Amino acid sequence: MNSAHAAVDIEGAERSGQIVLVCEHASNAFPAPWGELGLTPDQRDAHIAWDPGALGLARGLAAKLEAPLVAACQSRLIYDLNRPPHHTGAMPVQSEIHEIPGNAGLTPDDRSARTEALYLPFHAALGGLVAERLARGQATALVTVHSFTPIWFGQPRAVEFGVIHDADPSFAQAVLEEARRVTELDTRLNEPYSGADGVCHTLALQATPMGLPNVMLELRNDLIADPAAQEAMAATLAPVLQAALSRITANNGEAA
Amino acid sequence: MNSAHAAVDIEGAERSGQIVLVCEHASNAFPAPWGELGLTPDQRDAHIAWDPGALGLARGLAAKLEAPLVAACQSRLIYDLNRPPHHTGAMPVQSEIHEIPGNAGLTPDDRSARTEALYLPFHAALGGLVAERLARGQATALVTVHSFTPIWFGQPRAVEFGVIHDADPSFAQAVLEEARRVTELDTRLNEPYSGADGVCHTLALQATPMGLPNVMLELRNDLIADPAAQEAMAATLAPVLQAALSRITANNGEAA
Repeated sequence: MNSAHAAVDIEGAERSGQIVLVCEHASNAFPAPWGELGLTPDQRDAHIAWDPGALGLARGLAAKLEAPLVAACQSRLIYDLNRPPHHTGAMPVQSEIHEIPGNAGLTPDDRSARTEALYLPFHAALGGLVAERLARGQATALVTVHSFTPIWFGQPRAVEFGVIHDADPSFAQAVLEEARRVTELDTRLNEPYSGADGVCHTLALQATPMGLPNVMLELRNDLIADPAAQEAMAATLAPVLQAALSRITANNGEAA
Repeated sequence: MNSAHAAVDIEGAERSGQIVLVCEHASNAFPAPWGELGLTPDQRDAHIAWDPGALGLARGLAAKLEAPLVAACQSRLIYDLNRPPHHTGAMPVQSEIHEIPGNAGLTPDDRSARTEALYLPFHAALGGLVAERLARGQATALVTVHSFTPIWFGQPRAVEFGVIHDADPSFAQAVLEEARRVTELDTRLNEPYSGADGVCHTLALQATPMGLPNVMLELRNDLIADPAAQEAMAATLAPVLQAALSRITANNGEAA
C-alpha cells in the first residue's frame, strides 16, 4: 500500500449542478511503488494505458454543467477503477495485443495492496460525495466519461459516440435521442461495447443502488485529440446532457 | 458527526467461509449524540427500532458457517443502514403506527451528519471486507439477516421465513427450495416484501455490482425470540444456506 500516492482527484466538490462527472481512465501516470510495469513509452502513451482526451473533455463538461468531477490519478493498467477487484481486467496481464509485464504473476498480497491503495479510496471518495448530496436532498445523476480507440485489433470503428447504460436505460436513451437530434455524431447505444460486457462497474456500484440516472459516454479518441477538440466536444455535449436530463426528470418528477 | 460512536462491529473478519453475513438491524442502542429520539422504552424495544433476534441468529450462523459477520451498532431509527441517504426510510419520521419525534424536522446538516457518521463507515467497512476477499480470489456470497414482526398494522402474517433477492434470484431460489425440502418452515420468495419495495439496498450496493450470489433472510421474530430459539434456527438454516450455495456454485463454477 502506498499512502504517498493520491488515488483520486476531486475538482469542484461543492459545485451545485445536477450531474456528477467521473473519469476513471483520466491518467497515464505510473507512480511509485508500481512504476512503469515494464511498458515502453509508446505503450504508456497509448489507449491501453488510459482514455486519451477523456479528462480534457470531462473538465470542459464540468465547467459548462457546474459539475463536480472525480478523476483517477494513475493508469488503468495499475488498477482499472471501472472493474471490481476479482475481474481479470482490474490488473490485466494483457490489453489488446500488449502484454503487461508488471502485472504477470501478481500474488494475492499484490492484488490486495492495489485494491486498498487505489480502488477502495477512489470509490469511497466518489460514494461519499454522492451520499452527501443525496443526504442534503440534491438531485443527482452520474455520468462517466471515456474514450475508445479508432482501431481495435486492426479493425476501424465507425461509431463516434457510444452511449452505454447499466440496469436503467432511461438517461442513456434520452442522451442518444438528443445527440442524434442536435449533433452530426455517429451516435449508438451500447457500442462499441455494452454493460453486458462488464464495462459499467462504476455505474453499477455508485448509481444503480441509489436509483440515480446514469450513463457512460464513450468518445472515439481521434475526435478529442487536443485541447481545442476537447473543448469543442464539451460545447457540443453539455447541452445534450442537460436536455436529456431535463427530459427524464420531467417524466419522473426529479432525478434522484 | 460523532467520532466516539462505532458505526460497525465486525466479528471474525478473518474467517474463511464462503458466506459473509450482514445484520443491518442488529441493535436497538440509541447512543449519543442522537439519543432516544423521544421514544418510550417500549418503542425502543419494539420491532420498529431493530430486528429482534436477528443478531443472535446471525451469530449462530456465523459460527456454523465460519463466516465473518458485519453488524450495526445503533437503532435503524437513527439511520437504517439498509436504505440510501435520500430514502424516506433512512431516518424515518414515522414507522408503522409510531411517530419518531427525534426525526421530525431534520435539516440537511442533520441528515448529512448521520450519513457520514453511520451509513458511510458501515458500508465502507463491509465493502472493504468484501473487496479484500475478492482481490485475494476468495469466493464470496452475501447474506443479510433480518426479522419481521408477526403482526403488521394489526394483521397477522402467516409466512415464517422470507427469502428475498436483488437482481439475481439464483441464490434465493436455491435457498427457498432447500428450506422447503429440509425444514417445516412456511418459506416464501419475496415475502413479506420484496426487493421491488426497496428493502434490498445492502445487496444492491455490496453484492450485485460485484456479481456475488446474494440473499436477504427474513425470519418471523416470534420464531427467534430467545437465545435457544436463535441457536436452533441457526442449526436449521446453516445447512440450508450451505446446500443452496453448493447447488448454485456447482452450476456456475464458482460463487464469485
